[in-house]
Amino acid sequence: MNALDTLRKISEEKPLVHYLTNYVTVNLVANVTLCTGALPVMAHAVEEVEEMASVASSLVINMGTLDPEWIEAMVRAGKEANRRNIPVVFDPVGAGATSFRTEMPERLLSEIDFAAIAGNAGEIATLAGMQAEVRGVESIGGDARTAVVKAARALGATVAATGPTDYVSDGETLFAIENGHRLMGRIVGSGCASTAAIGCFATVGGANAATVAGALAYFGRAGELAAENSDGPGTFEPRFLDALAALADEPEMLEGHLKIEEEDVG
Amino acid sequence: MNALDTLRKISEEKPLVHYLTNYVTVNLVANVTLCTGALPVMAHAVEEVEEMASVASSLVINMGTLDPEWIEAMVRAGKEANRRNIPVVFDPVGAGATSFRTEMPERLLSEIDFAAIAGNAGEIATLAGMQAEVRGVESIGGDARTAVVKAARALGATVAATGPTDYVSDGETLFAIENGHRLMGRIVGSGCASTAAIGCFATVGGANAATVAGALAYFGRAGELAAENSDGPGTFEPRFLDALAALADEPEMLEGHLKIEEEDVG
Amino acid sequence: MNALDTLRKISEEKPLVHYLTNYVTVNLVANVTLCTGALPVMAHAVEEVEEMASVASSLVINMGTLDPEWIEAMVRAGKEANRRNIPVVFDPVGAGATSFRTEMPERLLSEIDFAAIAGNAGEIATLAGMQAEVRGVESIGGDARTAVVKAARALGATVAATGPTDYVSDGETLFAIENGHRLMGRIVGSGCASTAAIGCFATVGGANAATVAGALAYFGRAGELAAENSDGPGTFEPRFLDALAALADEPEMLEGHLKIEEEDVG
Repeated sequence: MNALDTLRKISEEKPLVHYLTNYVTVNLVANVTLCTGALPVMAHAVEEVEEMASVASSLVINMGTLDPEWIEAMVRAGKEANRRNIPVVFDPVGAGATSFRTEMPERLLSEIDFAAIAGNAGEIATLAGMQAEVRGVESIGGDARTAVVKAARALGATVAATGPTDYVSDGETLFAIENGHRLMGRIVGSGCASTAAIGCFATVGGANAATVAGALAYFGRAGELAAENSDGPGTFEPRFLDALAALADEPEMLEGHLKIEEEDVG
Repeated sequence: MNALDTLRKISEEKPLVHYLTNYVTVNLVANVTLCTGALPVMAHAVEEVEEMASVASSLVINMGTLDPEWIEAMVRAGKEANRRNIPVVFDPVGAGATSFRTEMPERLLSEIDFAAIAGNAGEIATLAGMQAEVRGVESIGGDARTAVVKAARALGATVAATGPTDYVSDGETLFAIENGHRLMGRIVGSGCASTAAIGCFATVGGANAATVAGALAYFGRAGELAAENSDGPGTFEPRFLDALAALADEPEMLEGHLKIEEEDVG
Repeated sequence: MNALDTLRKISEEKPLVHYLTNYVTVNLVANVTLCTGALPVMAHAVEEVEEMASVASSLVINMGTLDPEWIEAMVRAGKEANRRNIPVVFDPVGAGATSFRTEMPERLLSEIDFAAIAGNAGEIATLAGMQAEVRGVESIGGDARTAVVKAARALGATVAATGPTDYVSDGETLFAIENGHRLMGRIVGSGCASTAAIGCFATVGGANAATVAGALAYFGRAGELAAENSDGPGTFEPRFLDALAALADEPEMLEGHLKIEEEDVG
């Protein structure tokens, strides 16, 4: 489904997106979800994660601030979503930054069947078994183009690496998305928020590479619009939410502005 | 006490409001409290919740993101506040969404004597034992008017259901508040924040139905003012905090703008 | 190093600042860090705090919302940073408000060698063993000028007390910083955020009193610039982040605007 139709369907259905996400950017993630037209719910207690996941239309697992209890909750929620064919999206924040953050994604990847995985170039390269530098939760370089294709094949999922150019692949096709603005890299949580947009799109469009590319193009276009009226990263963030909401309310505003290129890499 | 006098007294006394609240909207809740003229404190360790509650002028318990340790802290803080006649306000976020979220409010209601309970229509209907649909933490419909009266009688507390029209009742009188703006429903945490306003008002005005109605009218009026200069949900949120602060600093700005209707339902 | 050179060096090196901080203001703290030119990382699991601290250029420990597990993580991270001579900055939020918040800073101070300690007047007075009133996490008065000198000597660290005038001392020299704006006191987390600025400056400039004073002057100057275009505390916060980023991008904008006075108190 293209981005316009996906946004229209989200507005009609108001699907629920269940998040197990970090406490640093959780408010932005929730607001991005609401602006996109879906309903966010954050619930992490092992007593309820399976039941909450079972009534959601997608599940997003973000390991920004993780500890053993949360990992247990993530595994339970992920397995329940898998049993019900609810798409699960994974954001391996900081993968490779510490040995804990190298082992944990391995465990999650072995226990949960992810429909889509999205991170920065360094994180995706780490998952693909390539050399990469991740400083804290930031990527310092890394070959995103190669990494998404390699990771998609190795992990059997749609994989996205966000950055100045976003790349998305299922191992056969590679999408390059040029929408976006440099101010997006100057607010905390733009990566988590783009994964949230993928989680919203997955509720009605699934997590194939074209849908994920559409989510990132929508997200990037909102960044372009927001930057027009911003004086810096602080005023950019509220304008960015305004733009996401405006585009979700009137998807035809996206027409002619989505910069997605598709290439066969099979 | 009417809303204007309540705000004046809060500004004079700068009372402390102790919160046990969710990590999704905690920053907004704290800022709403500060803008209203009170001092917020968030402290959840079982080692200190009783002592912190004992020096506060009201306690707000919000179950947005709860787990067993937090429930233990909530019970301890609530009981201590009860012992000292400090008003306790409850926001049963997502009540009814999962069985955990059905049982937990029951436990809290059985152990703590709440002065006021505020939620969306679905949550309040759930507490009143009525049929309601709560999707994640959002209410999908529900008869708010009937629910608040029924819940107030069943629970022996002032009960508020927020929505396009807010309803407040103590079981004898019903207040309908028409202040507000649709953008309030498009930011995450407007419900938690309105409960925070009730918590602030309760510090000096107690939690009778008229005071709670005044808090919601003040809150809704701030939303109306904020919407005048907003371009969407993102720019609405900072403008909303500006409006809350402006009204708290000059309560006479509220004169002639509070849309509260009172009805005898006893 | 003066503030201008410190900001230039941060922009060049993009150092990593590791935070163990509260969930109320964590997003603001992270954004302040990114705006200042450094990279924030929040990681609290005992499984990884030592490794994360060991690759950071400074560690900031903020006890705003603390519980026993977090204290264990703080001690481990702090000791590892000490072993590697990475500067550790401490914000004793709410010190003295409860007995838990009186004992915990004592434990942290006994186990970790802090390079700098920053709080409001009441918190610093509490650490210095002076009488002080801390209501929740807010200071109600207190003699900041005397407290910083006394605390610096007692604790063997650079100590800062923030307020309308900020004071910084190493026990020998006292800096008074007049930059700032009253709106800074009306947003939640301005104290945590100023400690974050100190944490950023410490990555390249260490935590001597002159560098800490420079961080607070930079922070205060950003507040002055932000206030020029704000209509209240809500719109102030994004404008404040814009100003921090603008000053970090062009430090020469600070020339002639830093109001730092130095006095010998040895």
